[in-house]
Amino acid sequence: MTAPVEMRELSEVECLDLLRTEPIGRLVFTEKALPAIRPVNYVLDGRDVIIRATGDSWASRVAGAVVAFEVDRIDGASHTGWSVVLLGTATIITDVDTLVRVSDFHSRPWAPGHRDRFLRIRAGRLTGRRLSLLPA
Amino acid sequence: MTAPVEMRELSEVECLDLLRTEPIGRLVFTEKALPAIRPVNYVLDGRDVIIRATGDSWASRVAGAVVAFEVDRIDGASHTGWSVVLLGTATIITDVDTLVRVSDFHSRPWAPGHRDRFLRIRAGRLTGRRLSLLPA
Repeated sequence: MTAPVEMRELSEVECLDLLRTEPIGRLVFTEKALPAIRPVNYVLDGRDVIIRATGDSWASRVAGAVVAFEVDRIDGASHTGWSVVLLGTATIITDVDTLVRVSDFHSRPWAPGHRDRFLRIRAGRLTGRRLSLLPA
Repeated sequence: MTAPVEMRELSEVECLDLLRTEPIGRLVFTEKALPAIRPVNYVLDGRDVIIRATGDSWASRVAGAVVAFEVDRIDGASHTGWSVVLLGTATIITDVDTLVRVSDFHSRPWAPGHRDRFLRIRAGRLTGRRLSLLPA
């Protein structure tokens, strides 16, 4: 007998509530036709995820693509927790008003000419699960 | 001024050492032409990652594909930590000797007819970074 791997699906409201509790998630995209993943800071803007990409060119390469964004919190001892996955199209935020507002989220002033880029992932699909994984 | 997002690349030996410290990672694959990610238990078998997929059909769909496997540990307060990404081809383990050995890793007996599947990701590329993310 094995423990169940997945306990139950989360509602969209539950997913959004959980997304507000964590500062770091993982952006999943395709790079040179291969799966790629990187941890990033984020904040929620309504149902959208806003990611700050600093001094790096990967944000431009991701723009326009359908990406996944995953956040989880899983306890290594009890092997229980949750995982939320957002699927949507990534765009680089260029509107100045939005940039100022988004920078406020990060408690930092936004300055023109700064190398930071802000990516928006417009949530097309939002799914989540409460998990119970198997002990290793 | 912003803090650096990435501090330094990790060597392969460092990556493997870090992979041995965590029980849970994230499998990144393509599902219906869309990026997909799910948390899974794993163990290392040399340089390969072995994933247990219980009572689920997704393992079969992943078999034969190039996948990414990510493990990280990032402190939400200091925004520092590490991330290791393994890129390789996933195969379902069918060899009985290997299955018995792999099941030992998980401290569980493997029984014929069990619905568990074990996936091997043969590490083609192993990269890691010590991270310093931006405060949210």
